[in-house]
Amino acid sequence: MARLKGFEKLTTVDNALSIFLDALKPKRLQAESVPLADAVERATADNIVAPMDLPRFDRSAVDGYAIRADDAFEATQFKPRTLKLTREEIVRKGYAKEVWTGNPVPEGATAVVMLEHTRKLKNGVEIVMPVTPGENISRKGEDIRKGEVAIEAGTRVNTYHLGLLAALGVSEVGVVRKPRVAIISTGNELVELGKVTSPGQIINSNRFLVSGLCRELGAEPEYLGIARDDEEDIRMKIVEGLAKADAVITTGGTSVGTADLVPLVISELGKPGIVVHGVAMRPGMPTALGILKRKPVFVLSGYPVAAAFGFEVFARPVILRLLGVQNEPRPWIEGRLTRRVAGALGRRVYLRVKAVEQKGELHAEPILAKGSGLLSSLTKANGYVIIPENREGLEEGETVTVHLFSPIARKED
Amino acid sequence: MARLKGFEKLTTVDNALSIFLDALKPKRLQAESVPLADAVERATADNIVAPMDLPRFDRSAVDGYAIRADDAFEATQFKPRTLKLTREEIVRKGYAKEVWTGNPVPEGATAVVMLEHTRKLKNGVEIVMPVTPGENISRKGEDIRKGEVAIEAGTRVNTYHLGLLAALGVSEVGVVRKPRVAIISTGNELVELGKVTSPGQIINSNRFLVSGLCRELGAEPEYLGIARDDEEDIRMKIVEGLAKADAVITTGGTSVGTADLVPLVISELGKPGIVVHGVAMRPGMPTALGILKRKPVFVLSGYPVAAAFGFEVFARPVILRLLGVQNEPRPWIEGRLTRRVAGALGRRVYLRVKAVEQKGELHAEPILAKGSGLLSSLTKANGYVIIPENREGLEEGETVTVHLFSPIARKED
Repeated sequence: MARLKGFEKLTTVDNALSIFLDALKPKRLQAESVPLADAVERATADNIVAPMDLPRFDRSAVDGYAIRADDAFEATQFKPRTLKLTREEIVRKGYAKEVWTGNPVPEGATAVVMLEHTRKLKNGVEIVMPVTPGENISRKGEDIRKGEVAIEAGTRVNTYHLGLLAALGVSEVGVVRKPRVAIISTGNELVELGKVTSPGQIINSNRFLVSGLCRELGAEPEYLGIARDDEEDIRMKIVEGLAKADAVITTGGTSVGTADLVPLVISELGKPGIVVHGVAMRPGMPTALGILKRKPVFVLSGYPVAAAFGFEVFARPVILRLLGVQNEPRPWIEGRLTRRVAGALGRRVYLRVKAVEQKGELHAEPILAKGSGLLSSLTKANGYVIIPENREGLEEGETVTVHLFSPIARKED
Repeated sequence: MARLKGFEKLTTVDNALSIFLDALKPKRLQAESVPLADAVERATADNIVAPMDLPRFDRSAVDGYAIRADDAFEATQFKPRTLKLTREEIVRKGYAKEVWTGNPVPEGATAVVMLEHTRKLKNGVEIVMPVTPGENISRKGEDIRKGEVAIEAGTRVNTYHLGLLAALGVSEVGVVRKPRVAIISTGNELVELGKVTSPGQIINSNRFLVSGLCRELGAEPEYLGIARDDEEDIRMKIVEGLAKADAVITTGGTSVGTADLVPLVISELGKPGIVVHGVAMRPGMPTALGILKRKPVFVLSGYPVAAAFGFEVFARPVILRLLGVQNEPRPWIEGRLTRRVAGALGRRVYLRVKAVEQKGELHAEPILAKGSGLLSSLTKANGYVIIPENREGLEEGETVTVHLFSPIARKED
């Protein structure tokens, strides 16, 4: 009947994560090559080296005239220098050549005079301002040099990277393949969205929640369906998940009741099985972490909010490691807490808050919600605040760090 | 020759945007219905009202026993209350019914005692702690009530919303259709990625940049190809874009040189044509804003960085309005500038910076780059700082607001 008892001992969040990572030693997945336009949001597998100089040639940064800088020496509005126009590929002393922004700077020219500092004549041009050598010229390789690292390994490719890679002529990008994550919902009470529910049944929302969290990180969720509270059913689905995917996530069936079958099945399936069960966090206390066939198995609560934070704290860092991305914290801001909130001594509390800007000040409004089952506490929030294990609570007006999952709201003054 | 002169007069950023929005009066696009899983990142068209209570029934928040609260009155470890177990659907005085987390609370029961506060007997259970009425029960409608607004109109749907909507049995979501944006690159010097380039040619990177920026916002870019510096070619592509899309974006051909054909063609195509040409911003000064057939036409610089900021400042707010999303600032943080930077009196400068956290402090490191053509200034940055028109520069150590487009970097101590 030990399984009917409460958790004997909870592991702290930090210990749980380090025990798990030490046992798992997650390795970056293999690389694959994708067309440039598909590389956005993917993680680069290796350093991407510039295959050419950018700009590829000295080019004019302005519309104007390419000249020899000394030909404009001491030129002024009142004492302009007059130069002849040339259409040749070379600019000789006493000549100027019309160039537009982006045009190659012709041989011989050492600067470009802006159009605004010239007056056109019938067969020449007056220069009314001096220029220094190199002025208004973007030098070959000034943006990036051939052989220089354009994008480091483990970088999440963004839109600006696409632009740079295109300019460098890179049409295929080596990225880490998407981690596949098998998702299993468990629970006799669950029905799928769209099916008729009878009293006492609950629509399976965790499937959408966990799949969405995987996709946000650039992983590929594969939903394996609902396992009933039955050892054989759960076992088959976990085995299927381990065969198909790089990680398995289950929701439900992790509490300490008789329905607590998932951790049991995992430990029976192989070594090391469950390495952490019960974490000193709220929500998410019944989270369990397992390893089978060297793959992570995240056993999350059936309560959506607890599942979301179990994912945030444990699955997120592991998936990032599978992607080779080590440094991707959520954006955070500092704000003042608008009211006192209770913590839970000995547990790390993930307080949902709404970060709001008002008159240039940032406030964090706690979303008050009793249970970890209240999905609306997540949809009303745009981030969370951590209440440390050693704090009884946080004070009104205290400055807190808000980890954002959605943009900050702006309140009208 | 007026077109060969510099801009007579630059419009301030704020004026340019308000002139443009006043003339355009952008309207939210029509709604469409999509399956729940496809709704993520889309903007809700109308308020989504909860079609049922959530929870749909009073349910147990813990594993334990449903009882009448008064049956546990003054129960202690030393003076436990003993109750008989029932398997009926109703809990009578003197009885307890086993329930697991999420189970409906049976009729008659007014509280649930946690398993940890009970001792199982052969045909009964000892309660060793009192409970208050309602304890450990999630009330029907506690998360959200039938008829309450679950998600407001104009909300960007996130993963947590998916979870809530699934739990509410919402399988189809009304979202605003994706704005279609026609993208036209202009310039005789451009070649497409993958084609052989000859000296003086430039690979068309803006196509990837602008398409990517559209996709980030949830718009659907359609690339119409490269228009040569030729009025007829540009005209045909713009007409095609206006026929196909809700907005048109061109890059290149906006400077004041002879190649300055795009604004000319737009104003010849109809009224009002170009409403702003030349903005007091850096980069992005030659940006022009036009309206044809009541659709916005953004004429961006051919320089990638200038195009990116022209998009940020003008196209982004308009696309958000087409989506009905009014309040979606980029995440921002405050940090200390690590060195002095020059501004440009009378112009708003968009300084690319790298926001870095070191020992709990946020620093903004300016990315120094001469020209707006340097793509690497965007890829090395994770955000930007605005230097106002009335500032000659920003001081080292000054606290600045960084508008983030990528996560903050964490430096090892």
